[in-house]
Amino acid sequence: MPTDYRRARLFLDRLFQGRSLDELGHRLKPKHHAPSGKVLRAFRSTLDGLEQRWQLLATRPESRAALADPETLRQMPSYQCSVENFIGTVKLPVGLAGPLRVNGLFAQGDFFVPLATTEAALVVSYNRGAQLITEAGGCTALLLNEGMTRAPGFAFANLREAGRFLVWALSQLEEFRQQAEATTRHGKLIDMRIMVEGNHVYLNFEFTTGDACGQNMVTFATEAICRYIDAHAPVRPQYSFVEANLSGDKKASAQSFLSVRGKKVTAEVILPPDLVGSCLHTTPEQMANYWRMSAIGGVLSGTLGVHGHYANGLAALYVACGQDAACVAESAVGVTRLEVTSEGDLYAAVTLPNLMVGTVGGGTGLPSQQACLDILGLTGPGKAAALAEVCAGLCLAGELSIIGSLCAGDFAHAHRCLARAKPARQPPPEAACLLTV
Amino acid sequence: MPTDYRRARLFLDRLFQGRSLDELGHRLKPKHHAPSGKVLRAFRSTLDGLEQRWQLLATRPESRAALADPETLRQMPSYQCSVENFIGTVKLPVGLAGPLRVNGLFAQGDFFVPLATTEAALVVSYNRGAQLITEAGGCTALLLNEGMTRAPGFAFANLREAGRFLVWALSQLEEFRQQAEATTRHGKLIDMRIMVEGNHVYLNFEFTTGDACGQNMVTFATEAICRYIDAHAPVRPQYSFVEANLSGDKKASAQSFLSVRGKKVTAEVILPPDLVGSCLHTTPEQMANYWRMSAIGGVLSGTLGVHGHYANGLAALYVACGQDAACVAESAVGVTRLEVTSEGDLYAAVTLPNLMVGTVGGGTGLPSQQACLDILGLTGPGKAAALAEVCAGLCLAGELSIIGSLCAGDFAHAHRCLARAKPARQPPPEAACLLTV
Amino acid sequence: MPTDYRRARLFLDRLFQGRSLDELGHRLKPKHHAPSGKVLRAFRSTLDGLEQRWQLLATRPESRAALADPETLRQMPSYQCSVENFIGTVKLPVGLAGPLRVNGLFAQGDFFVPLATTEAALVVSYNRGAQLITEAGGCTALLLNEGMTRAPGFAFANLREAGRFLVWALSQLEEFRQQAEATTRHGKLIDMRIMVEGNHVYLNFEFTTGDACGQNMVTFATEAICRYIDAHAPVRPQYSFVEANLSGDKKASAQSFLSVRGKKVTAEVILPPDLVGSCLHTTPEQMANYWRMSAIGGVLSGTLGVHGHYANGLAALYVACGQDAACVAESAVGVTRLEVTSEGDLYAAVTLPNLMVGTVGGGTGLPSQQACLDILGLTGPGKAAALAEVCAGLCLAGELSIIGSLCAGDFAHAHRCLARAKPARQPPPEAACLLTV
Amino acid sequence: MPTDYRRARLFLDRLFQGRSLDELGHRLKPKHHAPSGKVLRAFRSTLDGLEQRWQLLATRPESRAALADPETLRQMPSYQCSVENFIGTVKLPVGLAGPLRVNGLFAQGDFFVPLATTEAALVVSYNRGAQLITEAGGCTALLLNEGMTRAPGFAFANLREAGRFLVWALSQLEEFRQQAEATTRHGKLIDMRIMVEGNHVYLNFEFTTGDACGQNMVTFATEAICRYIDAHAPVRPQYSFVEANLSGDKKASAQSFLSVRGKKVTAEVILPPDLVGSCLHTTPEQMANYWRMSAIGGVLSGTLGVHGHYANGLAALYVACGQDAACVAESAVGVTRLEVTSEGDLYAAVTLPNLMVGTVGGGTGLPSQQACLDILGLTGPGKAAALAEVCAGLCLAGELSIIGSLCAGDFAHAHRCLARAKPARQPPPEAACLLTV
Repeated sequence: MPTDYRRARLFLDRLFQGRSLDELGHRLKPKHHAPSGKVLRAFRSTLDGLEQRWQLLATRPESRAALADPETLRQMPSYQCSVENFIGTVKLPVGLAGPLRVNGLFAQGDFFVPLATTEAALVVSYNRGAQLITEAGGCTALLLNEGMTRAPGFAFANLREAGRFLVWALSQLEEFRQQAEATTRHGKLIDMRIMVEGNHVYLNFEFTTGDACGQNMVTFATEAICRYIDAHAPVRPQYSFVEANLSGDKKASAQSFLSVRGKKVTAEVILPPDLVGSCLHTTPEQMANYWRMSAIGGVLSGTLGVHGHYANGLAALYVACGQDAACVAESAVGVTRLEVTSEGDLYAAVTLPNLMVGTVGGGTGLPSQQACLDILGLTGPGKAAALAEVCAGLCLAGELSIIGSLCAGDFAHAHRCLARAKPARQPPPEAACLLTV
Repeated sequence: MPTDYRRARLFLDRLFQGRSLDELGHRLKPKHHAPSGKVLRAFRSTLDGLEQRWQLLATRPESRAALADPETLRQMPSYQCSVENFIGTVKLPVGLAGPLRVNGLFAQGDFFVPLATTEAALVVSYNRGAQLITEAGGCTALLLNEGMTRAPGFAFANLREAGRFLVWALSQLEEFRQQAEATTRHGKLIDMRIMVEGNHVYLNFEFTTGDACGQNMVTFATEAICRYIDAHAPVRPQYSFVEANLSGDKKASAQSFLSVRGKKVTAEVILPPDLVGSCLHTTPEQMANYWRMSAIGGVLSGTLGVHGHYANGLAALYVACGQDAACVAESAVGVTRLEVTSEGDLYAAVTLPNLMVGTVGGGTGLPSQQACLDILGLTGPGKAAALAEVCAGLCLAGELSIIGSLCAGDFAHAHRCLARAKPARQPPPEAACLLTV
Repeated sequence: MPTDYRRARLFLDRLFQGRSLDELGHRLKPKHHAPSGKVLRAFRSTLDGLEQRWQLLATRPESRAALADPETLRQMPSYQCSVENFIGTVKLPVGLAGPLRVNGLFAQGDFFVPLATTEAALVVSYNRGAQLITEAGGCTALLLNEGMTRAPGFAFANLREAGRFLVWALSQLEEFRQQAEATTRHGKLIDMRIMVEGNHVYLNFEFTTGDACGQNMVTFATEAICRYIDAHAPVRPQYSFVEANLSGDKKASAQSFLSVRGKKVTAEVILPPDLVGSCLHTTPEQMANYWRMSAIGGVLSGTLGVHGHYANGLAALYVACGQDAACVAESAVGVTRLEVTSEGDLYAAVTLPNLMVGTVGGGTGLPSQQACLDILGLTGPGKAAALAEVCAGLCLAGELSIIGSLCAGDFAHAHRCLARAKPARQPPPEAACLLTV
Repeated sequence: MPTDYRRARLFLDRLFQGRSLDELGHRLKPKHHAPSGKVLRAFRSTLDGLEQRWQLLATRPESRAALADPETLRQMPSYQCSVENFIGTVKLPVGLAGPLRVNGLFAQGDFFVPLATTEAALVVSYNRGAQLITEAGGCTALLLNEGMTRAPGFAFANLREAGRFLVWALSQLEEFRQQAEATTRHGKLIDMRIMVEGNHVYLNFEFTTGDACGQNMVTFATEAICRYIDAHAPVRPQYSFVEANLSGDKKASAQSFLSVRGKKVTAEVILPPDLVGSCLHTTPEQMANYWRMSAIGGVLSGTLGVHGHYANGLAALYVACGQDAACVAESAVGVTRLEVTSEGDLYAAVTLPNLMVGTVGGGTGLPSQQACLDILGLTGPGKAAALAEVCAGLCLAGELSIIGSLCAGDFAHAHRCLARAKPARQPPPEAACLLTV
């Protein structure tokens, strides 16, 4: 039900539409007939299994063709460890933006960025921002910290037992490290943080994970620590869980914001006013005005951090490059800041504390995802830090371009001319769009 | 730099690795040489343009083949209005989960849910949860509210002028509605909320958008209102923006949580203890213990709402079904609640205030995305409310299955047996995994 | 235990200090001997009761004299309905700041503000800010909204029953109003907002409360509604509570921030640069620099809203004027904004959504508290809105003065010269302090 | 203006009440006539100065008498360093609650707690909770961490310079410590945390402050560090501030919640069901039901942490005992948890990360405040940790008592019978109130 009772009443009227309360009540009831069929769990992807699953479905023939096309069937084995109950692939269009010049500790040079999206105008907007940054000499980017976390929780009979446990745990860090690092070649235990809430103790273990994003890695390592605790702790918890929802996994949290989760990166660029004028059709002052009002807008609406739309660039890059799209939920937080320098230039910076990226593991090895990393020149070991710096640069590009549109008044126009052109009809004329560099 | 100075020093040591401060400083400097090439903006997808873009890239030949395969090139026109600077498609494997029985106001029956992901174990886990819910008679799901927002901001010389403007604006709602609704067949202006911060005024316009998610629709409608304001307001703002970052677009916010953005849905199921035992290998009491500790874990880590991992299911369904993956950032908030009823059953509910889904517009018309909606039986007009209820049911399924794993102690095991099996090698034996229904 | 394990170990070392774990464990154990005496509940304040309570205490004689002085004993009856188990009064020194010129919808003119505090430098700092504002022609202040809330919660067997209840409740608003308003002469039910979370329903009732703060008033009114619901609802909740912790009572919340609790007020002033120079020894530009960095500082540390130290002024005024000091917890949120106008002036505004003030009821009728309201000229009915506007002006004065100090570099100095002067010694020479107007 | 346009219109109607827009506009305008007088800054409290200030005021004679009574004038010198522009004292009634048995690391034994408040029913409610805890053997309380923070901010030309500065700062910790500790006998620098946001660097210095709350102490110490940085840093900031609003000073923040500010304490008690029945007239199950619904209520309303009303007890104790009442804004955050144990008892715990208490310095030396600390037996050096543990125990007592009232249905009743009894009339009969132990 909606917040306000007047809204609620209007909403109810729409809901009912001639249906009685009993009728609606019946719809909501549990129904205990047997389902007509169910998906059998299948870890291996076989043609037989795929056939069985499609048999369950009452789809149009073209739907099966669109997902389980011949090329997909040929590549079926490569998807084996990324998905179960396989029925095909979904295809997302990829657009190219760039070059994006990044002067990072790790990322160096001009990057072409593949973006998978179905939102019209997104790619041209990031492309504009990237080229603007490049024109200004590139953005400076700095990996500030890294660490993947897993946070088991332990419940004790009372505070005395929790305290005894903690005193012991604080003496066992070396053992914890050995147990954890026996499960992984790349993961290193680098920190343990402690949260006590009554008789509950959360241990937040922090790891570096090499060039993988590392969520599974830290799960396995933490599980090993938990087994060791089970076997050796002088006080037994009443119950415990390998993850007690304190790590911030898959959701935006103030915690990652105040420390780090995954990789923390900041990126900045300084733009002379003529470049702001020629590329964005506005002025540094107006950009700073927008920033001020939008920062307060973010604060007033209760977001974590203040920024515009990091999620757009991150989701497009994560999906293209085999990163976990679910992590957009936690990654899309941070701080954007724009101001006019005493020289009259526009200073712009983004800071993201929670980038969840890797260049090995996860979906990075799938054929088209690996291809997108190849476009970036960031495949395989040794590249994750650079990928994080590129992400920050990309977010900076996106913020500049969209704020430019909002200041120049062509935000709605850009979306209209692109999103509303129907495929069947003429595509929009190039000149119609103001998102020009 | 990391939070703690000790951590910061360790991190610095890793950064430097024999590189001098000057050397690092040089890497960070802007560099003003011309780039070797750049992506020309291309709204139309043509083979020539695609060829030009690939020429810019120094990729391996198999990368181009993986993205710009023959089937993709054939379907190029269908991607015309979803992406610019087209270079091909990325393919994400889709697994099937279900049936998920939903007893909703709008969604009725057993749904098979296509999930696009590269995270091993995700599909089997949701499949388990879905079948568990179905076994219990299905989940009850209730669309509680809907409304898409766009929030222009207006800056005045002072509070007096802001006040005068507001008095006028409050008298113009009918005009605003006419202006807005002239731009759209499906959008209806249903609310206007007002936020004053000093001499800044934000007007938060709320619309229903038919069966589209409607972000562009509300942008165009709000732009029309802004033009009307420009022409008729008795007090001119010093500057204004069609969106001043108060709408919560693409980021988690307390505001959507306290009202609605997109669609707000709640879903519940009641599970008898024997079903919890046979499917999840644990007890209602232990599930409730987990919930209590994890709810506090969420509170302590500073998340908005308390839940486990809505983002996993939402991202997989959004990507599969042509929804905006960037919206996972705002959608993955809500409240999960588990408790033991006085009869000893497990009560479980999820409430999500910010589902951004539609069954028309956006990426819903692309071939493989339309196929996924077809699997759900939710293509085209009249289906968006049902899709939102299915999303809530899916999140409920995911919470139950993962909490079950954490309680039964097989969370890490499930991920290990699936994610670590290498494609080249033998896939994991079915029996090895405890995620059984 | 502290966050970081290294910190935790250091902290443990300090804790133990030669004490064994068993020794500490013993200290923490419940101890079941009878207490030597206990405070008998006493609603009436009598000399006998007071004597009995002092008998329980092993205090120095001067302690009793300091609290239960003859004047306090004489006025004992006036404290009858404000406190139970009376043992005396605590005396807080009151300093005077002003004039603070407020050009409000309700507050008009020059106000002298009594501030009760034990923090040195607080009164001179607010005094400086108030006189600065007055010099600039006063601040504009605008009551934006008002409403006191009470939020009962109802738990149902399932969503179907919750839904039935809601449909009924939405039809009963007129009845609710009658029930509520029968309990009070001044309270009016003006809104009902609805929050559904699974099978839990929260109804957030909003009232105007005349010139009282009105917390008790809305409790009694809501209790009447709950009794009516109990007697008439077609679906019985399994249990319900007259307040289910959704109203934001006594704590900072995003909710009050996004709507209102108590009174919402904004205040602004525009300061020419010479006034900033002569009074604050700094420039509008530097003030705006501070604001920008401090706003981000607030965001990064995870506060609700962004401001400096509203709590200082509010606590001092609340304690002096018989407002509820506990409400400082919820009142001290909001947004401060400083910027340089295109004319080079300093624009400054504060917006506070949750001022909990009244001029009747609560502690407003106690002798010295009534005296403080008298100093403001705001005693009795018809003055609460003006008091809220004065509060906003006071917060604005405080923000300007402290930011001025931080910019001019005399923040620490001001505190040192005042707080460290020992009473016994010479008080600080007037000239030593830079907090000059 | 209020959130909803319908509410806004109603509100406007109330505002105007026959006044024209111009008339209201005129009220809001700056007005430049000279004020009739102003408060001259006065650090010394003299009778002459006091007389001058009262001359400025147009108060009734009894107001002056109520504030500047003879006893207050006698004690004027003791208020010298706590307030400026002295005009008298405000008197708050103090009630006694207890005994509260605390089994803490530092606090040991039965405490009688003086509470200064003007809210009827507060003292009896805390008294009931305290005696309930005592009956159960007392609460276990544990100081978990301590640390006072001050966070200077430094703005650099760009990230390169910020990075250089940081590398230097990380090598200077020993110097920083020496500089800081030269300013104080009791303060010790124990941590430095680093926050980088673009070219802005915040250094968050954390200190222990002996038995003082220590806000001034850390300001002076940090100022010494800043002077050292000014003189020695190899890169000069463009500007810097001794506090850049990252410390969480005087406002609730997620940061203190995730680490510590002041003192972090947890307290617990286990109550057998018969005690819950006899004292609170309810059951452990119903208390746990309330907790679950109220915890979600807190989450839904967007509070930091989840609790009921810590502010009530803290404000009453802070005001009585010479603590800074403004710090209630930051102190009143934390987590309350209630659950039924497997033995059927009620487990209850509170955790507060941000208690700002001291037993020396601030207002602790004022006559009546010192008396209140004397009642607690916690005056002077060596007692601050115990005071923090008592605060946690007090908050636990308050939560139990009020939740008990809400469960037993006598919450409104208790307030009515106390707050509405008029002093002039008969006080409420003891038997009328259900808040019985």
